[in-house]
This record gives sequence, C-alpha cells and structure tokens, in this order.
Amino acid sequence: MDDDNTPTPTIFTEMDTLQHEGGELEWKESARWVKFEEKVEEGGERWSKPHVSTLTLHSLFELRTCLQTGSILLDLEGYSLPQIVDDIVDRQIADGLVAPDLREKISFVLLRKHRHQTKKPIHRSLADIGKSSNTASSESVHPSQSRSMNDISDTPSTDQLKNKFMKKIPRDAEASNVLIGEVDFLDKPFVSFVRLAQATTLGGLTEVPVPTRFLFILLGPHGKTKSYNEIGRAIATLMVDELFSDVAYKARDRDDLIAGVDEFLDEVIVLPPGEWDPKIRIEPPKKVPSADMRKSVLNLNELGQMNGSAGGAAGGEDEELPAPHELGEELKFTGRFGGGLWLDIKRKIPWYCSDIYDGFHIQSISAVLFIYLGCITNAITFGGLLGDATDNYQGVMESFLGTALAGTVFCVFGGQPLIILSSTGPILIFEKLLYEFSKNNGIDYMELRLWIGLHSCLQCFLLVVTDASYIIKYMTRFTEEGFSSLISFIFISDAIKKMIGAWKYYPINRGFKPDYITAYKCECIAPDQGESSFFFSLHFNLTDLDWSQLSKKECVKYGGALVGSSCKYVPDLALMSFILFFGTYSMTVSLKKFKFSRYFPTKVRQKLISDFSIFMSIMCFVGLDMLMGLDTPKLIVPTEFKPTRSDRGWLVMPFGKNPWWWYVASFVPALLVTILIFMDQQISAVIVNRKENKLKKGCGYHLDLFWVGVLMAVCSFMGLPWYVAATVISIAHIDSLKMESESSAPGEQPQFLGVREQRLTGILVFVLTGLSIFLAPILQYIPMPVLYGVFLYMGVASLSGIQFWERIKLYLMPPKHQPDFSFLRHVPLRRVHLFTLVQIVCLAVLWILKSTFLAIIFPVMILGLMVVRKLLDLIFSQHDLAWLDDILPDKDKKKKEDEKKKKKDKKSVEPESDEEVRGKLWSMDLFSQQPF
Amino acid sequence: MDDDNTPTPTIFTEMDTLQHEGGELEWKESARWVKFEEKVEEGGERWSKPHVSTLTLHSLFELRTCLQTGSILLDLEGYSLPQIVDDIVDRQIADGLVAPDLREKISFVLLRKHRHQTKKPIHRSLADIGKSSNTASSESVHPSQSRSMNDISDTPSTDQLKNKFMKKIPRDAEASNVLIGEVDFLDKPFVSFVRLAQATTLGGLTEVPVPTRFLFILLGPHGKTKSYNEIGRAIATLMVDELFSDVAYKARDRDDLIAGVDEFLDEVIVLPPGEWDPKIRIEPPKKVPSADMRKSVLNLNELGQMNGSAGGAAGGEDEELPAPHELGEELKFTGRFGGGLWLDIKRKIPWYCSDIYDGFHIQSISAVLFIYLGCITNAITFGGLLGDATDNYQGVMESFLGTALAGTVFCVFGGQPLIILSSTGPILIFEKLLYEFSKNNGIDYMELRLWIGLHSCLQCFLLVVTDASYIIKYMTRFTEEGFSSLISFIFISDAIKKMIGAWKYYPINRGFKPDYITAYKCECIAPDQGESSFFFSLHFNLTDLDWSQLSKKECVKYGGALVGSSCKYVPDLALMSFILFFGTYSMTVSLKKFKFSRYFPTKVRQKLISDFSIFMSIMCFVGLDMLMGLDTPKLIVPTEFKPTRSDRGWLVMPFGKNPWWWYVASFVPALLVTILIFMDQQISAVIVNRKENKLKKGCGYHLDLFWVGVLMAVCSFMGLPWYVAATVISIAHIDSLKMESESSAPGEQPQFLGVREQRLTGILVFVLTGLSIFLAPILQYIPMPVLYGVFLYMGVASLSGIQFWERIKLYLMPPKHQPDFSFLRHVPLRRVHLFTLVQIVCLAVLWILKSTFLAIIFPVMILGLMVVRKLLDLIFSQHDLAWLDDILPDKDKKKKEDEKKKKKDKKSVEPESDEEVRGKLWSMDLFSQQPF
Repeated sequence: MDDDNTPTPTIFTEMDTLQHEGGELEWKESARWVKFEEKVEEGGERWSKPHVSTLTLHSLFELRTCLQTGSILLDLEGYSLPQIVDDIVDRQIADGLVAPDLREKISFVLLRKHRHQTKKPIHRSLADIGKSSNTASSESVHPSQSRSMNDISDTPSTDQLKNKFMKKIPRDAEASNVLIGEVDFLDKPFVSFVRLAQATTLGGLTEVPVPTRFLFILLGPHGKTKSYNEIGRAIATLMVDELFSDVAYKARDRDDLIAGVDEFLDEVIVLPPGEWDPKIRIEPPKKVPSADMRKSVLNLNELGQMNGSAGGAAGGEDEELPAPHELGEELKFTGRFGGGLWLDIKRKIPWYCSDIYDGFHIQSISAVLFIYLGCITNAITFGGLLGDATDNYQGVMESFLGTALAGTVFCVFGGQPLIILSSTGPILIFEKLLYEFSKNNGIDYMELRLWIGLHSCLQCFLLVVTDASYIIKYMTRFTEEGFSSLISFIFISDAIKKMIGAWKYYPINRGFKPDYITAYKCECIAPDQGESSFFFSLHFNLTDLDWSQLSKKECVKYGGALVGSSCKYVPDLALMSFILFFGTYSMTVSLKKFKFSRYFPTKVRQKLISDFSIFMSIMCFVGLDMLMGLDTPKLIVPTEFKPTRSDRGWLVMPFGKNPWWWYVASFVPALLVTILIFMDQQISAVIVNRKENKLKKGCGYHLDLFWVGVLMAVCSFMGLPWYVAATVISIAHIDSLKMESESSAPGEQPQFLGVREQRLTGILVFVLTGLSIFLAPILQYIPMPVLYGVFLYMGVASLSGIQFWERIKLYLMPPKHQPDFSFLRHVPLRRVHLFTLVQIVCLAVLWILKSTFLAIIFPVMILGLMVVRKLLDLIFSQHDLAWLDDILPDKDKKKKEDEKKKKKDKKSVEPESDEEVRGKLWSMDLFSQQPF
Repeated sequence: MDDDNTPTPTIFTEMDTLQHEGGELEWKESARWVKFEEKVEEGGERWSKPHVSTLTLHSLFELRTCLQTGSILLDLEGYSLPQIVDDIVDRQIADGLVAPDLREKISFVLLRKHRHQTKKPIHRSLADIGKSSNTASSESVHPSQSRSMNDISDTPSTDQLKNKFMKKIPRDAEASNVLIGEVDFLDKPFVSFVRLAQATTLGGLTEVPVPTRFLFILLGPHGKTKSYNEIGRAIATLMVDELFSDVAYKARDRDDLIAGVDEFLDEVIVLPPGEWDPKIRIEPPKKVPSADMRKSVLNLNELGQMNGSAGGAAGGEDEELPAPHELGEELKFTGRFGGGLWLDIKRKIPWYCSDIYDGFHIQSISAVLFIYLGCITNAITFGGLLGDATDNYQGVMESFLGTALAGTVFCVFGGQPLIILSSTGPILIFEKLLYEFSKNNGIDYMELRLWIGLHSCLQCFLLVVTDASYIIKYMTRFTEEGFSSLISFIFISDAIKKMIGAWKYYPINRGFKPDYITAYKCECIAPDQGESSFFFSLHFNLTDLDWSQLSKKECVKYGGALVGSSCKYVPDLALMSFILFFGTYSMTVSLKKFKFSRYFPTKVRQKLISDFSIFMSIMCFVGLDMLMGLDTPKLIVPTEFKPTRSDRGWLVMPFGKNPWWWYVASFVPALLVTILIFMDQQISAVIVNRKENKLKKGCGYHLDLFWVGVLMAVCSFMGLPWYVAATVISIAHIDSLKMESESSAPGEQPQFLGVREQRLTGILVFVLTGLSIFLAPILQYIPMPVLYGVFLYMGVASLSGIQFWERIKLYLMPPKHQPDFSFLRHVPLRRVHLFTLVQIVCLAVLWILKSTFLAIIFPVMILGLMVVRKLLDLIFSQHDLAWLDDILPDKDKKKKEDEKKKKKDKKSVEPESDEEVRGKLWSMDLFSQQPF
C-alpha cells in the first residue's frame, strides 16, 4: 500500500447479511469469493458450486452511487471490531450522514454475532442468552453488553482454524468483509467503505483466520433486501477483481475508487437478456485473461474485438498467428566439433541430483508399473518375433537382457531420461532380412551383425560430433504426426493381428452339436509298422506304446496319426482370448474416462482409478482368467539365465568366421541402420520434447544419440537386439508423470504444470525388466491376450492426442457440429480437408511400403515426408500452414518479418487506437464533441 | 405498428461491413442473427456456431449516443434502396448533420453491391466491371452508374431463393439490415436509423428473400473499425431482442427508442472481466426467459435475484416450490355410477380418427420394430416360464396368441393406447402357486382358473363403475419410483440370471489341455443286458444297436451310459452366449449415446442410428452369430397353430370338473388377482400419463381397467395367460414416439413437443406378434442371449430416467462434484440422503418379499409403500417433500393456502418492490434524493 511496486495480496471476500434467527439479530454468511462466487444455498445448507458472478448493471451503478455518497475511511487504524465500528459511526455522524442518536443502534447491529456456513444455526452470542427473543426490542439493549459477545476476539477461534476451506486461500491473502443489512431505524442507506492501515484479525468476522483489510457496510431501511444484496455482490465481485483490488489498495481518495469502478465497467462483458437466462450459473471458464493482459494498453485495444466480433476488413486479418513451434536452442548448429554434445552435457549435469530425488513421489509407482508392463510386453513380443526371424539367435532371453541393459544405461546417462528404449518394428525387419541374407550366402550372422553394429556406432558418433541432429528442425507437425500415427497404427494392427492369430491357433468347431458329443473324439492311431517308423523303432519298441494314452504332441512325435473329428479344434480358448483382449482394452478406456465422472473425490478418481487404470484392468482380467481356469496362452518368461540358442555364448567374437572384406563392406548396411536409428530416435525425442509437455530440464539430442551409438556397439558384442527410442511407450511414460496444480481458488481449473522429469522411474522400469527373469512365477499368470489388449490401448491412446486424427474425424461431421478448433476459424474447411487428405495418402503409401521388402528403407521414407511437406508450401498459403502445421524455419523468419511490417503499417493507420478505449466510460470518444 | 395488439414479426438481422475487395468497395455480410449471433469466420470462410452475443458495455453506450445524435426516420415510405438512400441523405442534410456536397459520395457508398457469405468473393457489381481498380478514386465515379448495380431489384434473386438458411427463419419474419463502414470523406460519424412504413424487399440487400423493415447505417471516418463493428453488433443484438424489437416497431420518436435501449440496459446481465474471458463464445442456453416473463412486472422484481444472488433472510425462502405433480381431471371422483368410464369414453371418442392417421409417420416404423421385438421377447420368456410352471397348460403358443389378442383389443379400444399389455412377474407367480395348489388338491386347474378370471373380471367392473381408480391420486413419486425401480431390477436380474443359466447349461471344461485332446471323449456304452433294459428290449433288439453311433439323447433314452471326460461339457457356447449378450447390450448403449456425438447430420444420428439402435444391435449380433455358426440357443417360435398341450382345446368349459362350491369360493383368490391387476395396471398408466410426457389426448384409467377386465374373462375362457400394462415396455413405447421441434433459430434447443399419440403402432405390434407364428423361419435365427441383452438394456434404460436413481448416485459423489439438481439447492444433503435411504430400504424389503412365497401379495405391498410415504410426512417437512417427492393431495391444498398467506404477508412488507426496478436506469432509487 505504501510501496507502489509490491504486489497486492490476494483478497478473500465474505459477504454476511443481517438476519433474524430465533428472534435474534445475527450476521449470516451468504456468499464468499476467492476468485469465483460461492453462494450459500439457503435450503440446501451447502455451498453452491463456484460460478462466475453474474451481476446486474443496475447493481453496479447503485454501488457506484454508494461509493459516491457513503463515507470512505482509508487507512483507518483498527485493532478490534468495536473500535472500528465506533470510528465508522463517528465519521458518518461527522459527515452529517446519520443522526447522532442512531449511534448506539447502528453499533449494536454491526456488533452482532457472525454465523458462518460451517456452523449450525443453534449458536447464539453469549450476551443474548437469557434475553427475550423479541427482535423489535433488541435495539433497546444497552450496547455495552453487545461488546462482550464471544466472537470479537483477536485470536482465531477453533472453528476458524479447523476450516478446511483455508487451504483454498493463498497464504498471503487478506479478507474483505461485506456486511449487508436491513434495519428499521434508518430512513436512508448507511454506507461505509473502510480500508484498514494494517490487515487485522477481527475475531469471528471471517469464516477463516485471514486478517481483514477491507470492510464494506451497507445498512438500509426495510423493503429493498434484494437491491442491497445485489450491491453487496457487486462490491464483493469488484474486491476480488485483480485490477480493482489493486485500485482499492492504492486509492488515495473516493475519486480513485470511483475511477476503479468505472474502469471495471469499461471492461465488463454484457449478455443480452433475451439470449441468456440470468438464473443459469455460469461455470468458471478454463482460462481467464490474466490481470497483466488486461492491464496492458494493447489489450485495451483488443478488448473491442469480443469473441463474437464481426471483424471487418482489418478485423479478420490481424488475429495473431499461432505461436510457432520452437525446438529451442538444443538444436542450434554450433559449428564446433562436438559442440552440441558438450552443450548437452553442460545442460544436463546441473539437474543430475534432482533427476534422482524428483523421482520420490507416489505417482512414480504407478508410472513404473505401467511402463514396466508395457516394456515387458514389448520385450516379449519383439523377443518372440526376433526369435522367429533369426532362428533363436536372438530370443526372448536376449530381448529381456538387452532391454534391461540398454534401458538402464540410457536412463542413467542419457540426455532425455523420459525416453524409453525398445526394439522397434523397422529394426526387426532389418534383422530378418539380414539373417536371411547371411543364411543364404553362408556368412556368419552374428559376426556380420557385430561389424554392422560397430560401423553404425561410429557413424552415430560422427553424427553427434557434427551436430547433425540439427536437421530435425525441418521436421514439422506434418512429419511428426505422420510418423507417430504410423507407429500407432502398427501397434493397433499388431494387437489385432495377434488376436486374429488366436482364432487360427485355437480353431473353433463351428458345426458342434451338443447332442452329438458322442461323435467327437480324437484318437492316436499307431502308424503302419513298415513305413515311416523306422527311425523311431531304433529307440523304442513301438508296439510297447499304449497309443491311446499318448498326448497330441507325443502322438505326432512317434509318428502316430490323429484321427477324429475333434482333433483340429480347441474349445473355448479363442473366445476366452477375445473376451480377455477386448475386456482389458475397454476396461482401461472406461477407467481412464472415469476421471471425468462425478463419483468419488478427485484424488481417488484421478490418482487411483485413472492413473492405475491399466494396472487395474490387467489385474481384473488376470483374475477372471484364473477364475475360469482355462488354458489360455500365458506370458512365457525365461527362468534360466542363458542364451536362447545353446550354440552361442554371451560374447560375439569379431574375427575369424567371415572373410576380412566383410569387415569393411558392412559399412554399407550400417549406413542404412544409422539412418534408421537416427530418424527413429530423434523423431521420438522431438515428440517427447514438445513444448506442450512443458519440460523444464532441457533435452539432449546429441547426448541421446551418443548413448544409442554406444549401446549399438555393446549390444552387437553381446549379441543382443539393438535399441532406439520407442514413441508410444515414451509418450505413455510422459503421460503417466504429468503434474497438475492443486486447483487453488474454488472453480479454477487445475493447470498442467509439467512432467515429473527424473531418471528414477526409467531406471526402475528397466531394473525390474531385468529382474523379471526371476519374477517368472508371478508373471506367468498373465494371459497374452490381456497384454495385447494393453497394446491396443496404447496405440489408440497415442492416436487420440494427434491433431491429424481430429482432422480425420472432421470428415464425418457436418460443418455446424464441428468443434470450435482454432484452425477451423482461420482456414477454410476445404483446405483443411485437403491437407488431411494429403496426410492420409502419405500414410497409406508408407503403410503399403512398410508391408513390402521396402520396409527396410522406412526411415528414408520419413525423409520423404519432409520433402512432401516442403512441396505443400506450393499448394497451401503460409497462413494456412501456420494454423495446420508449422512454418518451415526459413519461411518462419520471412513470415515474422512480414508480420512486423504489417504491424508497422497498421500502426501508422491507427495511431490513436491504443489510447482509444482507455479513459472514462463516460467520455464517448466517437462523439467527444457532444456531452453525454 | 398501427395496431398495438398485433404481435410484431420476428426480426432477422444481417450485418454488412464495407470492405475493399479487389480494389472495389462492397458490402460484405459479417454476421447474422435470428435469435443468436452467427459470425462469418473470416479465415475459415464459414459461419461460426450460433452463440450468445457478448457485447461491451461501451458499445451499448456508444449505440445509445448514436441514436441520440443520428437521424431517425420512422415509417419512411420506401420502395427501393436508391430512393431510401436518397431520403436518408436528404434528412441528414436537412438536419445539418452532413454537408450537402457529400450527398453523392455517401449515396455511392451505400449503394455498393452486397456480398453474402453464400457467394464466392469473385462476384462484382456489373457497373464496376471494366473500371480501374483504384479504390481511392472510386468516389469520383458518377453516382448514377452505381444505381445500375444488379442487386438492387425488387424481386428476390435466385441466390436468395436457393438459400437453405431460409427455413431457419420464421415465415412472418422481417429483416433489419445493419450497414457499418469506414470511409475517408467523413470527419464525423454518419448515423441513421430507418423504419420503413412497409416491409420491402430491397433486392440483394439481405441474404434471404425476407423483406426489410429496419435499416441502421453507421458510416464513420477511418481508424475505428472495431468500435463501429461493436456498435453494429449492439444494434443487431437489440433488434433481435423481443422486447426491443417491439419498441422499435411501435416507437413514435427518438425518445421511445432511447427508452428501449435503457430498458434493455436495465435487464442486461454483466460478467466481471476477471472471471470471464471475452473470447469464449457462449453456447446458447437450453432455455431462455420468454419475453412475457421478462415483460411481467413481477419478474422485474425477481430480476434482482440473479442466479448467484446471495439471498438474504427473505431471499432464500420465497423461491417458488416445484410445480405440483397433477394427475388431471381424469381421476376426479364423479360420484355417479360409471361416471368416470363415461367421461373416459367421451374424452377419447373425438380423438379416434386422429388416433389412426397420426400413426402414419416414419418414426412409427422404428417404434413398431422396437416394441415388437420387446413384446415377442417378453412373450417367449414368459411363455417359457408359464409352460414350466403349469406343465404346458399355458405355453409359448398360448403366450403369443394371448399377447396378440389382448394387445390388439386393448390398443383398439383402450383409453390409453400407448400402454402395452404383457404378462408380468406377479401374475406368473400367482399362476405357479395356483397350479401347484390345484395339482395337490386334485382340482381341475383350467376350470378353477376360468372362475377366478370371471370373478376378477366382475370385480374390475365394480372398480370401474365406482370410479375406484381415484385412489391413484395418493400415489406420489415415491411410490411410482419404488414400483418402477423394482420392475427394472426384475428385468435386469432376470437377464443376468438367464445368462448365468447359460453357464450351467453349457458347462465349460476348465481343465482342458489342448495337447491332451486325445484323452477327451464321450462314448455311449451299452447297458448291462440283464438289468434296466427290460423295458426297451420289448421294442428293440438292443444288440442290434450300434451304441457308438447314438447321440447323447438317444443313448440316454435307450438306457446307455455316457462314459468319458467330455460328456458333461459343451465347448464355446457359454462364452459365445456371453459375447452375444454383453455385445448386444453395450452396442445398444453406445448407439443410443451416439445421438450426442458430433458425427453425421442430426437426422442420420438421431432418426437412424439412435432410434434404430436396438434393431441394429440385434441385426449385428444375429449376423455375428450366423457368421460363427455355433449352435447357440435360438428363439423357438411355435410353427403350428394348436395349444401347447395336446389334451386341451382352445376353449375352457366352465362346468363339470370341480365341485360347485368352487365356483363361489374362487371369489377369494380372484380378489387377490384383482388387487394385483388394478395396482399393476394403474401404476403403469400413471407413469405413462406423467405430465412430462406432454400427452394431449387425455387418458382413460377407467376405460383401461374395463378392457383389462373384459380381457381377463376372454383369456380365461380360452385358457390364455392374463395381461396387464407392462411398465418398462410402455415407457419404451413412449420414448420411441417422442417428437421434438425442428429447431427454429440456429442455436435454439429443439423442444420436446409431446408423444405421437396414436393406436396404430400398438395395433401393428400385436398383429405382428400374432403373425410371428408364421415368421418362425426368420425369427429362429435370433439367439436368445441377444434377446437377454435387449432385456438388460430395457431394464437399465428405464432406471436411468428415475430421480431415485440419480439420488442413489449422489452417495458416491463428494458434495462439490454433485450435479446442480434443483432439489439439492433447496433440501439439505443429509435429508436427501435420508429420503433415498428410506426408499432403498423399502425396495430391499420388497425385493426380499418378492423372492418368498409372499410374492403373491406383491400388489398389496405397493399399497404398503403408500403407507410408508404417508409416514414420511412425520419425518420430513412439507418443503423438503415438495422438492423430493410430491405433496399428498390434502397436504397440497394446505400448503397452497400457506403459500398464499405467506405471499400476502410479504406484499404488506414490501409494497413498493413491484415498481422498484421499473423505470429508468439512471434514476437511482436508493438515493433518489441525490442526482446521479
């Protein structure tokens, strides 16, 4: 107040109205404001939901008049309510506003007990007990008695201290109390606005132990309760307004306050009575313009342009373009040898300690569980596929070990520990082709692979030291979305393919008739002795075998024939797999959505049910599976620590098996692997590091690539699969670590604060993955279809955040039902559709290529997407692209210059517009020559 | 305009702004209003969604100043735009507002071509083609040329006529055109408000062929585009305001208009700038206060009490109670013999024709399909159960025939043809007990049943002629909800029980190991020849049989033993049944919800997908079932027209089989049946006739009961089951026939208009049910689990509309997340919870009783509910009950009297309050002694 530069405290406003309760007068809390209004529901005896205070214009004008005519006491030295009341009444009398003989009556009324919504209505002031309940005569009671009432004390009462509402009020808050009452001894209103020199706790005046700074008192003659209440709501709303409260703190006199009201009126938003029902409570908006925004002069200009403004020629054009998608200084081209890597290390080192201790949070547990399950699912799936593709040179065991090793190293030393390394599709395809090539040409696969890995590692280092990650800058939303949609589609299609596989693996006997059960059997028939059994007869005496006791596998093994109509069918398992798969998926989706329901407190709903939704679904369907007791395919976890193939060890020797020139020639396939790894890794990193994730600890593209390179070499030596960043799981990792503000004022939306950036969850996930080899007894209860359900969920969930996907949905919506996306406001629908179509075509081409042998050049195709994006510059205007995509770097600059120029032009056209709205409401600038 | 009593036409407002397009000046449509604002999205080249016009207070004051200073031309004789423009400019010159030398420039600008959002920007006025595109010089063009522009004609252009938007504008609408522009030759604003004597089509001025009545022109110097636009939006918003447009039509002079603006300002709703972002477009509210409401003096008083108003002592109390639940005059006690029945007939006869032809509507088809499927499901289920209970004296065949007969008769002659008759649970239980009693006591069941039916029929007639349905009046929401929740729970539990039955009927072999398939078999072993087979040996030579070729049933029949580990298991069917059941249910729910999505035009979404959701789900899962080809349990429809039991005919003889005194004694059980039928029938009727269904053709409680009685007798004679109104299917019938208004103004919510009341759908449903005997070849493809899924859906759907259910959900919600139900605003939460708890306990007791032998007195228990409700009067205040339930009839009266008295009291306290807000905004009544 003394110093103009200190920020003013937040104001909590409580409005009390004078009521007759059991014949006694008392002040009853009727509404409160932290930022939004909460009303006491008279009948419901509860707080209403926080809502926007809708006022009548009338009440605002009446308030203005009140402030013009009432007494204003600024910087009053106040230490207790009775003394303050005395001062107020003295001033009123001195100003000639009330007759001196009313002094005691007014004091009496103002010192009545305050009852807050937290208390039950039985309480009465001590002084009033035992008196007659005749309200009319209460004024005749000697005022000195009323001073003794118990709620006028300097220390906060236990009721106040116990009030849980306190945590919704900022620490520095000060209270403003609005007292509104009707009395029968006044014939004109008694209005007083008081600012205390120091915020003082005035006993039970306020429901929470917050010191009072402001007092607004309005007492008036009977018959206008509603008007008085509306005035009270108006001043209360003004007091919590950031700009007006500033004015109230700094006002030197009455005129400053009036000017504050006028400024408020100037900014006010008006709803026409025919288009809005005043009884509707308006929910607090997601975002409210900040005080700074409102304060800024520029903004005053903008205010004219309301949401519905029918912008004219200039109006439509000068809306700012969307904030450009910036990649930050991490991707600057330093021009020095390893400059980027050095900067990355310098950037990450200071965060290292916090990277550990920031991980100690309850949320980490759910994140670890979630990502761990995703990782082992991935490890098992890719392990199985790799085992298939390489005749078990790399199998599930190698996959687990490699995932654990690579993941742990990356999370400990990497630039962006939120990234999760995993096997990816393109690498799987490369390995498959490489193995086939080796086998067909008699080359040793493991040795060749080692050399490719080594070359690739060196190439990565080369990319690191030359700051080559710089080119990622040319990747826009178009490319990113193409890439991540493709990965999502792969997840979804893999999950579905696996399920279709189950139908083939467990064929259903469709023609089964329960009544003819006697006709279904499967018998093992001994082979003809003479024929194929000569091999087995060396070992066994086939006639000794009881053929009918053999299992299916044994029967086949010993050359028996399976005869019967039920041999090729497996009952129940296909359908059960489907139920588990689809059940896990839909339960996860439903539990995730539960966050938006109204049930249970927010904490339970969000932290427990939504965050652990995948875990709960898995548990639930594992339980169902155990209950059913069917022999569904279960997770197979290696239990012994040894390579999957017995003819290989844990180390691959670099020399000896292949001709020497292969050591050099492997440079060429290595190049392909390098491009693949580079693209895969860096696109995922860009997606993870996106601005909207609000990462604060910076990233390290060069450092990441360095470690991926190192791991390439290590994994190649140990014969483990190669690892790069996996988009979907990394995004899931980030999502599970998102932080939101505890919403402060009631009704305010919790803000997304950022991600819990740390290395602990990642490290734990991979240590657990490593230990999973020993968790086999537990993990083996998890049916595979449940894990495929999780896969499907991950794919679908990562699609849902993509703008491309939102735009595809637009095709199915008639224009008038389309959501109000900002790009739709600025880009014609047919252009939006065209842009989406281009993306769809690109994706379709990529998808087709992916399914052919060209899959190996998949990363190169991503480069192709960047070329397509460049070509789009020819079809779409930069304006449209800015809304639908991002501007490419050089264009960006140009655009900005254009913008600047435009702004300059505009300034010269409307030099006065900045000052235009500023000033009093009453000076009608359009017609300033005429008095209003 | 001439006659003060005729309603003024609706106004359509179009706002055009002056723009430079390709160097030419033209008027471009920038926004339009029917009731809400639609803005042209500049970039998006589309209409925005309709939204509430948020204005700045500033612009409203500027508009007020404009009307004070500009020229006002009321009742101008205008036949073409050029002539009108001439008159406007003349007046301005005459008033000395513009210099005469500007006449031609202004006319030129005002006669520029108008481009509407429907057209592409290529159009130019004919006169402008071939001219230089120098905009600055455009003023020098001779004005006479501009008169020739093609869009100033008296007949509407094809563009206008083709505009589909026309159907959103009421027929009697007149246009108000707002023209806003910046020009460089003016140094102060040129403002004109014109009302034409007759609405005139002014060529291409308006986008739709609506004649123009009002013109508002604002031209001003450069640099204030936004201010001008905001003023334009303000007048446009005012013009579509019902009260202001009335003022505009009737204004005699400028002062009337200003007074209109002031009245508007007086009612305006204000949002504080710190709590609302002006950029948010506010969606139109569900309901807007009507103009009459706003006009009424009382309302002006109420206006003070805004949604968030912190009502004081009186404020909280005087909110009106909810509208009492009225049953209408149909249930009045006439006191005459059959007076009610006579009134019912008199009431229904005039509607009879419309009852037929109102049925010819596309919606009827979906309703018929839906209800038909529900009916046959019911017929089959109850038929099956009845057959079980009565040793097939009444089976599926009787059930189909009875349903068809009773339903058709009732729909043709009944008082409320929307009610669907069906077998119900209580009757089933009665029949079961009766059959057991007859069998144990050697009494002929069919004959006894006939006599009970006859007695019951007579008793019904007695109830009809004495107007006994009158007592239904004492049934409140409490009783209705108890009854219908119970019925819903029975539906749900039956559906689930049936599904659990499937698991027992098709046991799954849980221990099945695919590998040991060879160990699973089921063989039919011939019985020991000496023992049990002596009976069969009379017919067959058992040794001739190939036992291994016998089916399961045959094997059992011939006394063979089923040996093997797979005998007692049935593969796949249980799981498949579950998938079909749950799939049908969830698909129906999802499709119903699809109505609220954004995809596809509203028509497709609502009429096709949502209305046919049950049919589509059934089709879909029948298809899936056929695709799988599994032997799931299918719907069994009788194919031959004969009684289920071969030893009974289609007619039951009344005499001969039982002792004569039974003919009299059956009076006692008949009484039970009568109570049962009366309660079941009338409660369903009350629920169907609820006020919220907005039925217009009246109902006929007595007539309904009369026909139910007649059908009792007929069905008893034919040995068919007895039928009463079925709550769930009747509600489904009503829901499928609901009509909604085609939303008129964009953004206005479609209103629920009522139900398509007719007899056709009901008749068709039952005729189809009768014909279903011949539809067997098609119907037999429907698997039973699909129908159980539909059952489950019907149970859940009928629960969802019940307030009781909403209150149960409140238990799980923390208070701050609870929805804003009006009863929560007025009744303390703990009272609400207590009330709900009482209901839950009552229901639990009913549920338990229903499961015992007491089920037969189920209808009497409903009477018990009414007693409980009466007792609630002792625990709850009438105020609370009015919100949570309804007031009982006598209490209702008392309450009303109390209310009246209260109101009177209040009036005497605040005699001036009615006039209080009326009047000018500027007269601050609080401080009327002080000038503002």
